[in-house]
Amino acid sequence: MNDSFVQFRQDGRGVVYLTLNDAQRFNALSADMLTALQNALDAVAQDARARVVVLAAEGKAFCAGHNLKDMAAHPELAYYQQLFAQCSRVMLSIQKLPVPVISRVQGIATAAGCQLVAQCDLAVAASEARFATSGIQYGLFCSTPSVPLVRNMPAKQAMEMLLTGEFIDAPTALHYGLLNRVVAADQLDAAVEELVAAIVSKPRVAIHMGKELVYRQREMGMESAYQLAGQTMATNMMDVDAQEGAQAFAQKRQPQWKSA
Amino acid sequence: MNDSFVQFRQDGRGVVYLTLNDAQRFNALSADMLTALQNALDAVAQDARARVVVLAAEGKAFCAGHNLKDMAAHPELAYYQQLFAQCSRVMLSIQKLPVPVISRVQGIATAAGCQLVAQCDLAVAASEARFATSGIQYGLFCSTPSVPLVRNMPAKQAMEMLLTGEFIDAPTALHYGLLNRVVAADQLDAAVEELVAAIVSKPRVAIHMGKELVYRQREMGMESAYQLAGQTMATNMMDVDAQEGAQAFAQKRQPQWKSA
Amino acid sequence: MNDSFVQFRQDGRGVVYLTLNDAQRFNALSADMLTALQNALDAVAQDARARVVVLAAEGKAFCAGHNLKDMAAHPELAYYQQLFAQCSRVMLSIQKLPVPVISRVQGIATAAGCQLVAQCDLAVAASEARFATSGIQYGLFCSTPSVPLVRNMPAKQAMEMLLTGEFIDAPTALHYGLLNRVVAADQLDAAVEELVAAIVSKPRVAIHMGKELVYRQREMGMESAYQLAGQTMATNMMDVDAQEGAQAFAQKRQPQWKSA
Repeated sequence: MNDSFVQFRQDGRGVVYLTLNDAQRFNALSADMLTALQNALDAVAQDARARVVVLAAEGKAFCAGHNLKDMAAHPELAYYQQLFAQCSRVMLSIQKLPVPVISRVQGIATAAGCQLVAQCDLAVAASEARFATSGIQYGLFCSTPSVPLVRNMPAKQAMEMLLTGEFIDAPTALHYGLLNRVVAADQLDAAVEELVAAIVSKPRVAIHMGKELVYRQREMGMESAYQLAGQTMATNMMDVDAQEGAQAFAQKRQPQWKSA
Repeated sequence: MNDSFVQFRQDGRGVVYLTLNDAQRFNALSADMLTALQNALDAVAQDARARVVVLAAEGKAFCAGHNLKDMAAHPELAYYQQLFAQCSRVMLSIQKLPVPVISRVQGIATAAGCQLVAQCDLAVAASEARFATSGIQYGLFCSTPSVPLVRNMPAKQAMEMLLTGEFIDAPTALHYGLLNRVVAADQLDAAVEELVAAIVSKPRVAIHMGKELVYRQREMGMESAYQLAGQTMATNMMDVDAQEGAQAFAQKRQPQWKSA
Repeated sequence: MNDSFVQFRQDGRGVVYLTLNDAQRFNALSADMLTALQNALDAVAQDARARVVVLAAEGKAFCAGHNLKDMAAHPELAYYQQLFAQCSRVMLSIQKLPVPVISRVQGIATAAGCQLVAQCDLAVAASEARFATSGIQYGLFCSTPSVPLVRNMPAKQAMEMLLTGEFIDAPTALHYGLLNRVVAADQLDAAVEELVAAIVSKPRVAIHMGKELVYRQREMGMESAYQLAGQTMATNMMDVDAQEGAQAFAQKRQPQWKSA
């Protein structure tokens, strides 16, 4: 399970800590890093005990995006197509994962690193973290990062980041909706833990059905969205834990989850 | 027209005040409450004198969402499917109503109660109002509330509310875009009246065509959206009141609406 | 190229300054003004030296939208259909233009004038600028302005502007996401120049591919969006300037663009 590129740690509550572990290269998303990340996400998807993922990083940078040095060495269309397809598969795997993924951003997140933050369900950053879709500085517009960016922040602010490649600081990223929390660096673990604790105290089935539904219905028209959401809720209600939750509510006591 | 669950009052200007009237059960959206609300909305849809709806609530809570106690008593898929379908029909009726609907939120709005606020065209809240998609606390992810939520606030903030079930206060809800105004409780009616007055002073046909267009074009691609919007404006311009408005503008005088 | 309605100036860097030049009529989007604007945009689209457009205006108003006086004089459906189709074509041309368009808003922007600001890729305003979708004041709901409005600001705030027709000030417009910057009037050119300089220092091909991709992928589902974005990035990487950028990065030197 462990890999030199991505550290994998799972605690007794089902919290999976995935840590990008290539500090020397600013945790760049090389083919090796992407393979390690994909393997880790695939393992989580198969693991019924997993409840939430914290995506963190070693060193000063969170993630510097693709490895431009590698890319310079392979001036071939097929190489680039394969690389971006691999990266997009990792990003889609985050969205498809049955458990929520929280970014823990301790340093700069640029290009596909910024995309990683945007793609996660939730994101917490240290106040010194900074964000940029900087590809355009090197003549490469951050097209794939634009996919989660425009779905997680206002259009004109996203376009400015994409066209200029310039950094925004963590409070600005919070203001734009790219983050859920900004805290002092020494409070980062505590802030992440607050979200983790809120999630692991909820039944896994409901979280899984709900996360999937949110992303699917968002792509639909209003009527179809309501139809799917209504069916999802009815199915969710038939689950043993939702029945327990409703009984506990009726009896004014704390629910005792079966699945937890 | 009146109903014990929903008070119905209409003033001389065509302002319809619908007031949820089950304070003892925190105005929970029981089958009876939903039926009363649907009937009231259907009546407004048929009433050519209606110009705007204010959706308010009696008691300390605005609306606590579905009645979990009732739901605990009916552990049947068909019952739940019917309940969520009924509720979704009410929500869609708000969007389809030919007149704008303004939430007047004086207290907590949770689960489908929070959904009701998100679904309204406009929303004003007292500063002590609080909002949560709290179903997940009882093992039931707020899937149907997520439909208007993700269309009315930033993605990561919506996901945090849905995954944690925790409350946000009124200023935060305003900041996220879930509300148009937050005021002191004793200013709530005045703040609602400001929006009401701005709407009833406009011609009914234009408001009706416009509201419908906004929601339809939002689901379309840009080119189709412009095509439909252009046709809608041209048709709107042929209406007697738009002709009067343009004449009044040309003659530098106040318009005298025919339909008002 | 020059036209009495739209001034056209292009500097040595490929920055095109288009200035609405009908201050007496508050730069209203008359048929003549729209024709002039369409011609100017078509010329930019054909000009390989163009790199960015600054859309500015003469006089106290930025743009007052359609000319209601002209419209009052032609109470014919076909006339209105033609007018809104012409205007929508201008708006779509801004989005389709291979180079970014920045609004420079020095005064009020109302109805289709507010739409123009919303439709541009980026927007900078003087602190005294004000914004309204005011058509409803004259019985004409701003349906076509609602198209870029709901794609550039939160839903409830857009609906409030559309239903009430009331003005918001520049800081509020910035807060809603309608603007990228608000500055003192005497800093307006400097603030625009900052964005211009950031854009003209980037390779034209990458900006063109990227701008087009952002708007196309935004209308797609997540998987299709990633597929198109990945192909776009791979193609972008094969461009001579992206190769130079990657080489420059690998060699720790500044890139020397071929296309600039």
